[in-house]
Amino acid sequence: MSVSKGKASWSGTLKDGKGIMSFNDYKGEYTFASRFESGEGTNPEQLIGAALSGCYSMFLSALISGEKLNPESIETTAKVNLDKDDTGPVIKTIELDSKVKCEGLSKSKFEELSQAAKEKCPVSRLYQGTEIILNASLL
Amino acid sequence: MSVSKGKASWSGTLKDGKGIMSFNDYKGEYTFASRFESGEGTNPEQLIGAALSGCYSMFLSALISGEKLNPESIETTAKVNLDKDDTGPVIKTIELDSKVKCEGLSKSKFEELSQAAKEKCPVSRLYQGTEIILNASLL
Repeated sequence: MSVSKGKASWSGTLKDGKGIMSFNDYKGEYTFASRFESGEGTNPEQLIGAALSGCYSMFLSALISGEKLNPESIETTAKVNLDKDDTGPVIKTIELDSKVKCEGLSKSKFEELSQAAKEKCPVSRLYQGTEIILNASLL
Repeated sequence: MSVSKGKASWSGTLKDGKGIMSFNDYKGEYTFASRFESGEGTNPEQLIGAALSGCYSMFLSALISGEKLNPESIETTAKVNLDKDDTGPVIKTIELDSKVKCEGLSKSKFEELSQAAKEKCPVSRLYQGTEIILNASLL
């Protein structure tokens, strides 16, 4: 269906080195501090959250489109919680918060489609190693 | 350990609508065409690829740092293959290609650490719903 590319480079040790993640026309610097402390820059978990938010929102639009409705807005935020277990660092949960405006969409149909988008969007299907907690609101 | 945020918004139907994914200081437009055809813009799979490349490279640096070595460069590219199965769209494989320069690192230790980074980096652990195919080269 499609092939997409993303890249990264890193130079130096974990604590003193730095890296750049890139895709399309984006390049973003990341370091130990921007990932685990409050340093400037980005980190992989921000991209993980944006990718899930993007996929979920588009998939939900597709499901709503299938009902012959036109969603005015779908606004989604993901909070990615990087934690630790015995094996090392792990993303235990992702909290997905989504707010939707759509004329003509009933609350019960909205809930059904939101749940389906969470289960079936390909990024959710990819993230089998975590628990995705969905909080969906119809405005 | 850390909490990171990523966002997206979408307005309109699947085919005629458009969205924006955002994190940190980045905002990137995405559409049906930028995801499934060759239209301008980004898509969630590019972020998926960059996040895995970034996490893998940083984790490998951590493992090499643990051997008291200092990696000059780790360059990683991910090709994310979005496909379809009976349930719908699915990311069946991600090809991860990594090239490393590091003085003093033996080929056998390099192979051991590359395999460990692939298994243990938290983004690999998240992506349980796909097969990650690693091609690691020591330059």
